[in-house]
Amino acid sequence: MLGNFTYCNPTRLYFGEDSLQFLKGELAKYGPVVQLIYGGGSIKKNGIYDQVIAILADCGKTVVEDAGVMPNPTVEKLYEGVKIARENKVDLLLAVGGGSVCDYAKAVSVSIRCEEDPWEKYYLREEEPDCEIVPVGCVLTMVGTGSEMNGGAVITNHAQKRKIGHVFGDEVFPKFTILNPLFTYTLPKYQMVAGIYDIFSHISEQYFSGEDDNTSDYVMEGLYRSLVHSSRIAFRDPENYEARSNIMWTATWALNTMVAKGKATDWMVHMLGQSVGAYTDATHGMTLAAVSLPYYRHILPYGLKKFVRFAQNVWGVSPEGKTDEAIAKEGLAAMEAWMRELGLVMKISDLGATKEMLEGIADGVFLLSGGYKQLSREDVLQILRESM
Amino acid sequence: MLGNFTYCNPTRLYFGEDSLQFLKGELAKYGPVVQLIYGGGSIKKNGIYDQVIAILADCGKTVVEDAGVMPNPTVEKLYEGVKIARENKVDLLLAVGGGSVCDYAKAVSVSIRCEEDPWEKYYLREEEPDCEIVPVGCVLTMVGTGSEMNGGAVITNHAQKRKIGHVFGDEVFPKFTILNPLFTYTLPKYQMVAGIYDIFSHISEQYFSGEDDNTSDYVMEGLYRSLVHSSRIAFRDPENYEARSNIMWTATWALNTMVAKGKATDWMVHMLGQSVGAYTDATHGMTLAAVSLPYYRHILPYGLKKFVRFAQNVWGVSPEGKTDEAIAKEGLAAMEAWMRELGLVMKISDLGATKEMLEGIADGVFLLSGGYKQLSREDVLQILRESM
Repeated sequence: MLGNFTYCNPTRLYFGEDSLQFLKGELAKYGPVVQLIYGGGSIKKNGIYDQVIAILADCGKTVVEDAGVMPNPTVEKLYEGVKIARENKVDLLLAVGGGSVCDYAKAVSVSIRCEEDPWEKYYLREEEPDCEIVPVGCVLTMVGTGSEMNGGAVITNHAQKRKIGHVFGDEVFPKFTILNPLFTYTLPKYQMVAGIYDIFSHISEQYFSGEDDNTSDYVMEGLYRSLVHSSRIAFRDPENYEARSNIMWTATWALNTMVAKGKATDWMVHMLGQSVGAYTDATHGMTLAAVSLPYYRHILPYGLKKFVRFAQNVWGVSPEGKTDEAIAKEGLAAMEAWMRELGLVMKISDLGATKEMLEGIADGVFLLSGGYKQLSREDVLQILRESM
Repeated sequence: MLGNFTYCNPTRLYFGEDSLQFLKGELAKYGPVVQLIYGGGSIKKNGIYDQVIAILADCGKTVVEDAGVMPNPTVEKLYEGVKIARENKVDLLLAVGGGSVCDYAKAVSVSIRCEEDPWEKYYLREEEPDCEIVPVGCVLTMVGTGSEMNGGAVITNHAQKRKIGHVFGDEVFPKFTILNPLFTYTLPKYQMVAGIYDIFSHISEQYFSGEDDNTSDYVMEGLYRSLVHSSRIAFRDPENYEARSNIMWTATWALNTMVAKGKATDWMVHMLGQSVGAYTDATHGMTLAAVSLPYYRHILPYGLKKFVRFAQNVWGVSPEGKTDEAIAKEGLAAMEAWMRELGLVMKISDLGATKEMLEGIADGVFLLSGGYKQLSREDVLQILRESM
């Protein structure tokens, strides 16, 4: 049944090949000091950095550089970003990059005026911000996380071997996001397909939960089908604008929080993948890919009806003359074939996970209760072993 | 191809059987004088009026009554609402009702501080507001128009025989909307199914346009399937909470402007239906129902590929051994069967349209260019004749 909910998503999106032109109008709404947040410097190679700097200069902004945000942003980097923001009294955090950079910017935004330790407050104690929040804007250059239109912010603490996401409220959502599919062309294929699987996993985390028949379930089947269709085109032809733009837009739909409204959600694949990430520092989407099939095969008997529906409505499996179990398994086999087609990593051992790490990884997995089966630590270990 | 677009939808939704409790928190954000806008008084019979008045009193608001908004709000009523708002210096327009009441509230909101005639400025000259906009909030009691989360506002001018919609920007969207499926239970079945067809038509106006293969096309197929599924349950059992809540949520999805982003749209069924409405004052959804099949059969050869896809993905038509045309027609036949199942009005003559009116109705039809065929006046007349 569709449960009670509140929904508000005020992020303003500018989508398309000319969308960077709208940055100027957005910058005019904020004060003069902009903290320019980016990653390892790929935006300097592909020219996006120069374009953004030119617009910032044109708007008379003082630019404070905050480079080097890593794929899994660390708590140490978060402290550094907060320090930069405080020392320069920044008025806007402008994230140029992928989900890591957006996530990091949001984590900084709620920490600048916060006197407590943000890791402890937001990630360990799971509290909400009670301080002024510095606005965030995004220019997206890598697709997958949906971070451009939500309040999610994942931070990794290597010392504590924890990678934790906090989902903040709409006051923390980016005020605006520039989505230009052309900006994603230079991304290596490994990153592209990892992002595609991240999108697929976001849909799955929200689809595989609840016995019901919500509007969202139908919408998500559409998102799955669009994603599978476009991913195949983009894999063959990464500069296919139509495919790349549909993937970009599907990523936003998949995690702009709307499809989750009024329904239960799972998120165990992310809990498993994030703990693998905390140990291996592997690419987020690949950690999800490597644990997904063992997890779904493990919970299949408990959510059989939904797996049958998934097989038929997403993968076109014909039900005739088959048991529900056979239909459901055929759906997962179709999903596996698609994953192998894209060259996704199918084993956590291929991401650097060792047998010795498994107990520790299992300790780092938060056991959520929204999925078809409440996992025990033993279940988690079994899934991790099957993911090796 | 997914075109360039800007998207922002800041409306805050409160959904569910307890959602009216959130009205208090929203009212606190606005000044003391509230213009309470409603229709013919059904909210007094079903108790919603009393509940809202109690909350307004509890918040210490001064309530200015603005009752009697008709199903097709007139320009005269608009002038009256503006006068009420100006005389009482209202701080918030609170619409309690269906799409007509929401539409009307939005039209008032952009006219209070506007010195020009709003009918001429917004509806005839199609200009945008350049004045201060008084905020609007909604408590929805009838489902269909999607007006609760967009900028649409249709106004009828009987003297000029024109029913025209203006789609305003996000600064005119309701600031908040309370969506309680229980509030829709007392609606007569005729109004319920008219609203369901309005939703179906909103999806169709956005689906039947463009040769492409956007994420939105897949999402809309999901919305169609959810709507058809839930409509059948609600028709048999109007107090089925799951069905009524899914229909309510689907209505919002269908016209919260997101599925239209980056793609062409049609809207000719609304142009036809609205002109029928200007002459007959018939229920909006029924005017759409009565012109739809003649229109879609007329344009089918020009958008054959999409009609084939509609047949297969929405209605489960098997393509085997059939021509594209046969598949497409089978899809429309399935749609017709569903419409008859719900008891929708299939002829404009059953809504009061006469042969003598047809020329005038045709004159009132705006000829848009986003659909599969650019209609001529002769096409319009032919479709209207086939709708008799």
